[in-house]
Amino acid sequence: MPTQRYPLPSLDNLPADIRARILEVQDKVGFVPHVFLALARRPAEWRAFFAYHDALMLKEEGRLTKGDREMIVTATSAANHCLYCVVAHGAILRIYEKNALVADQVAVNHRKADITPRQRAMLDFAMKVCQASHAIEDSDFTALHAHGLDDEDIWDIAAITAFFGLSNRMASFAGWQPNPEFYLMGRVPKAKA
Amino acid sequence: MPTQRYPLPSLDNLPADIRARILEVQDKVGFVPHVFLALARRPAEWRAFFAYHDALMLKEEGRLTKGDREMIVTATSAANHCLYCVVAHGAILRIYEKNALVADQVAVNHRKADITPRQRAMLDFAMKVCQASHAIEDSDFTALHAHGLDDEDIWDIAAITAFFGLSNRMASFAGWQPNPEFYLMGRVPKAKA
Amino acid sequence: MPTQRYPLPSLDNLPADIRARILEVQDKVGFVPHVFLALARRPAEWRAFFAYHDALMLKEEGRLTKGDREMIVTATSAANHCLYCVVAHGAILRIYEKNALVADQVAVNHRKADITPRQRAMLDFAMKVCQASHAIEDSDFTALHAHGLDDEDIWDIAAITAFFGLSNRMASFAGWQPNPEFYLMGRVPKAKA
Amino acid sequence: MPTQRYPLPSLDNLPADIRARILEVQDKVGFVPHVFLALARRPAEWRAFFAYHDALMLKEEGRLTKGDREMIVTATSAANHCLYCVVAHGAILRIYEKNALVADQVAVNHRKADITPRQRAMLDFAMKVCQASHAIEDSDFTALHAHGLDDEDIWDIAAITAFFGLSNRMASFAGWQPNPEFYLMGRVPKAKA
Amino acid sequence: MPTQRYPLPSLDNLPADIRARILEVQDKVGFVPHVFLALARRPAEWRAFFAYHDALMLKEEGRLTKGDREMIVTATSAANHCLYCVVAHGAILRIYEKNALVADQVAVNHRKADITPRQRAMLDFAMKVCQASHAIEDSDFTALHAHGLDDEDIWDIAAITAFFGLSNRMASFAGWQPNPEFYLMGRVPKAKA
Amino acid sequence: MPTQRYPLPSLDNLPADIRARILEVQDKVGFVPHVFLALARRPAEWRAFFAYHDALMLKEEGRLTKGDREMIVTATSAANHCLYCVVAHGAILRIYEKNALVADQVAVNHRKADITPRQRAMLDFAMKVCQASHAIEDSDFTALHAHGLDDEDIWDIAAITAFFGLSNRMASFAGWQPNPEFYLMGRVPKAKA
Repeated sequence: MPTQRYPLPSLDNLPADIRARILEVQDKVGFVPHVFLALARRPAEWRAFFAYHDALMLKEEGRLTKGDREMIVTATSAANHCLYCVVAHGAILRIYEKNALVADQVAVNHRKADITPRQRAMLDFAMKVCQASHAIEDSDFTALHAHGLDDEDIWDIAAITAFFGLSNRMASFAGWQPNPEFYLMGRVPKAKA
Repeated sequence: MPTQRYPLPSLDNLPADIRARILEVQDKVGFVPHVFLALARRPAEWRAFFAYHDALMLKEEGRLTKGDREMIVTATSAANHCLYCVVAHGAILRIYEKNALVADQVAVNHRKADITPRQRAMLDFAMKVCQASHAIEDSDFTALHAHGLDDEDIWDIAAITAFFGLSNRMASFAGWQPNPEFYLMGRVPKAKA
Repeated sequence: MPTQRYPLPSLDNLPADIRARILEVQDKVGFVPHVFLALARRPAEWRAFFAYHDALMLKEEGRLTKGDREMIVTATSAANHCLYCVVAHGAILRIYEKNALVADQVAVNHRKADITPRQRAMLDFAMKVCQASHAIEDSDFTALHAHGLDDEDIWDIAAITAFFGLSNRMASFAGWQPNPEFYLMGRVPKAKA
Repeated sequence: MPTQRYPLPSLDNLPADIRARILEVQDKVGFVPHVFLALARRPAEWRAFFAYHDALMLKEEGRLTKGDREMIVTATSAANHCLYCVVAHGAILRIYEKNALVADQVAVNHRKADITPRQRAMLDFAMKVCQASHAIEDSDFTALHAHGLDDEDIWDIAAITAFFGLSNRMASFAGWQPNPEFYLMGRVPKAKA
Repeated sequence: MPTQRYPLPSLDNLPADIRARILEVQDKVGFVPHVFLALARRPAEWRAFFAYHDALMLKEEGRLTKGDREMIVTATSAANHCLYCVVAHGAILRIYEKNALVADQVAVNHRKADITPRQRAMLDFAMKVCQASHAIEDSDFTALHAHGLDDEDIWDIAAITAFFGLSNRMASFAGWQPNPEFYLMGRVPKAKA
Repeated sequence: MPTQRYPLPSLDNLPADIRARILEVQDKVGFVPHVFLALARRPAEWRAFFAYHDALMLKEEGRLTKGDREMIVTATSAANHCLYCVVAHGAILRIYEKNALVADQVAVNHRKADITPRQRAMLDFAMKVCQASHAIEDSDFTALHAHGLDDEDIWDIAAITAFFGLSNRMASFAGWQPNPEFYLMGRVPKAKA
């Protein structure tokens, strides 16, 4: 197994707020996604990371569905070759979209994915923020407006892309491996039920 | 669904040798992998393609296992963003390696995959043939010799990479979609038995 | 002036904690750095962003000086062509390093900058995290160990790079302009005294 | 002379069908193009390679002239920095087009070549299949339709590009050198008559 | 300090014409810009270099202002990561444009710079000449005509870009450092008066 | 024929010194290489260009042969996709090296060219100056010292590369076509005698 470059903290020694959240996730998902433990050795960073994550991924406002958001994460994490995020968020994408195929599609080539024109435009923009944010022009905004997305939605697309660009770099540099459970999640209907 | 850009031929109208092989594959796999039909509208190309494929992928000689070969296909097809080949050959890789996780790993970032040092060296070479074949030097051969691979094995790695580079370009340009069955194959032990 | 794509909130309407921090910064710096206002229209993101920032940039532990950290920000923000961060953090870099020239040097070409070999190694690593994090290898860690940096310092380098990669993408996509005051800060001894 | 990395087989020891084709080529061209011998050490690959080659390059149907096809090979092989194919197919291109200058032009920069607008569009498409096949869109097809090329012609362009991408990688990795005779062919009218 | 790779000649030993020009520059600027000395060890190259420089940068004809010309130099030198030229010509740009901010803006990301649409088009063209001159098309000329620039102005843009591409490569390879004075020039009104 | 974008001046109207040199070249070569006329519409630039050219290409000192210098020009001009310079200087390279094959070899892939190890190192360095001059390190100098080249020779390599990078950009942007005569020069022994 490739080096997990930093030791994982013991759950028992973590600050109470972090431990509580981790236990809650474990309860809901059935296991502790690796990132929760891997980052917990730095509590201040952990708290900021998940606060940021929640602000972008759990918010109720706007036109981006939860599936849209995970689609952005999966596509841009693949562009960054981040194994952890492609596998973990690909799983969540399959679940939210109730589509067993879409995660692999957007990870390999979003142009060939079976998604809506609005999602295609959304991913085109996200990929540009990911790979050439300095070259974003007003015309990139216009292209999204044409699909009924407004400037707040565009901010959401950009911010999700930017935040997971951070996450991708942390996971890749530190050698975080996705939990084996993620690979299969959402591929088989109620497989684990 | 993204455009399948060329109509699929009817199995009934295909030349006998092609139809026979297709029926044989259908028997073995349980469905007709899309490439067999999509390419059959050009029988002469079909015959050359599968003759080449078989010469490289079905040969018995050499140190590359069938899993090694599918691993090369999966990694380099991902570098070429070929949805068809990543999904279809990723499935076969999982089966040959009896490893439900390895295909996604080498597709996203072969440096993080749970593979042997010999396989890592093999993929490093394949990626260079895929992306910068003009820059191959004698030192690239030496690196593989150090893992017990000889010049015939190196030819195999290069030829598999080159052949699937052809396949990747055909699939992407023509809009071939992987059969839905491939996405799950090899992920669940005897899931469909 | 290029479009500031999103309206700035009025200081009066901001939540008390955010307003307090902004007033504190204004007091210390003499003006409100644009990012504090531009991001404040999204309070939850603002709070997460500055919590993350503070965890990385204000921490007391480790071998990275405050100058080192700003040097990482300046060099990687230039690689991302982020005007806001190059100008704002270049200013802070000049002040911490008491060096009027170093910010322009690392922004244009860190290989030509008048910095220590340890800083050169630190920036080489940061640039790799910025541009090819998936290709980070154990040898990249070894190179930094040779300069007396340990794995916690390396985490700091990577996390700062990753966090400002997020910041760069937000600033570029949203059209944030650096405050004019930043351009001159640290270039003239006690210029504003 | 740069290493020819694999020994050439003796003509006498080759299978009869391969030897017969090689002698036929020698008769027609006046020498044995290196690829015929270099690949013959692997008879099954040889047979598949030339079957594929003939299906694409010797077919009588479609709107692509033989000159068009060699032009595609020369331009895309130059993009892949394949010495063997640029020199050998550049020679054939000169002969088919009865144009001593065109091969060097498309090899260095097809945008400056003295070719028809239809050929320019054809090469633009071939270069995209060669370098970014995953990004081919319907609009790329439309651009070729505008020049009177139909979907079968487009398949031909893509397939020729894909096949010689295979050939380029084999030639570069294995160190195949073009026969010296190719360099001058088609440059002087009836030079060898 | 990074290696100045070649020794600087003594002013006393230089040919009279070169010494005269250098003294004249020293008189005007207050110091000898490093390039004047660094190149003088090769008098024939020095004379050709400054003759070329003067032909492009001191000419009176055409629509490009002196500020425009220095803006082209600054932006393209940043694309080439040339520390000497970004710092030295950024200084001159600030002075000619009477704008303390514009040099840093065009160096980091000309798309975010506070410049006119005509200057934006001028820099877009210059960047293409700098980075992909082989891909210049008639439509690139048309884009500039739309801003009132004619073919002679376009030649000026291209020639300035090409000439400083030469200068950038010399400065970077030989390790020329900008004089410290340049860093501050044009940033403070009459700072040195 | 692709657009020659700027009209050629009439020889009769050129300044006497320029006309004299052009007539001299015509006498020696048998035709007027296009660059002499194309650039002559700007006499001051013409004079600087050829003064620079002569300083680098006609100098007698140093270890670079005239063949070495033309080899640098041919290889780096191919990297810049400059049709004019590859064809014209490829011709001169063939003549100086008395080698009908070497120009095409270094233009397509200098790694496969039949050149000496010293020339290979020389071209490796030239390609780096051409494509990534900002990344030149002391180790690049050391590699050339190992082949008996000193710092003056290295300057020659870099300066020739830099100068023809200028020339490449002028030729490509302005649409200069190589004279047809260049394509065959040096390919046939005493062909024109």
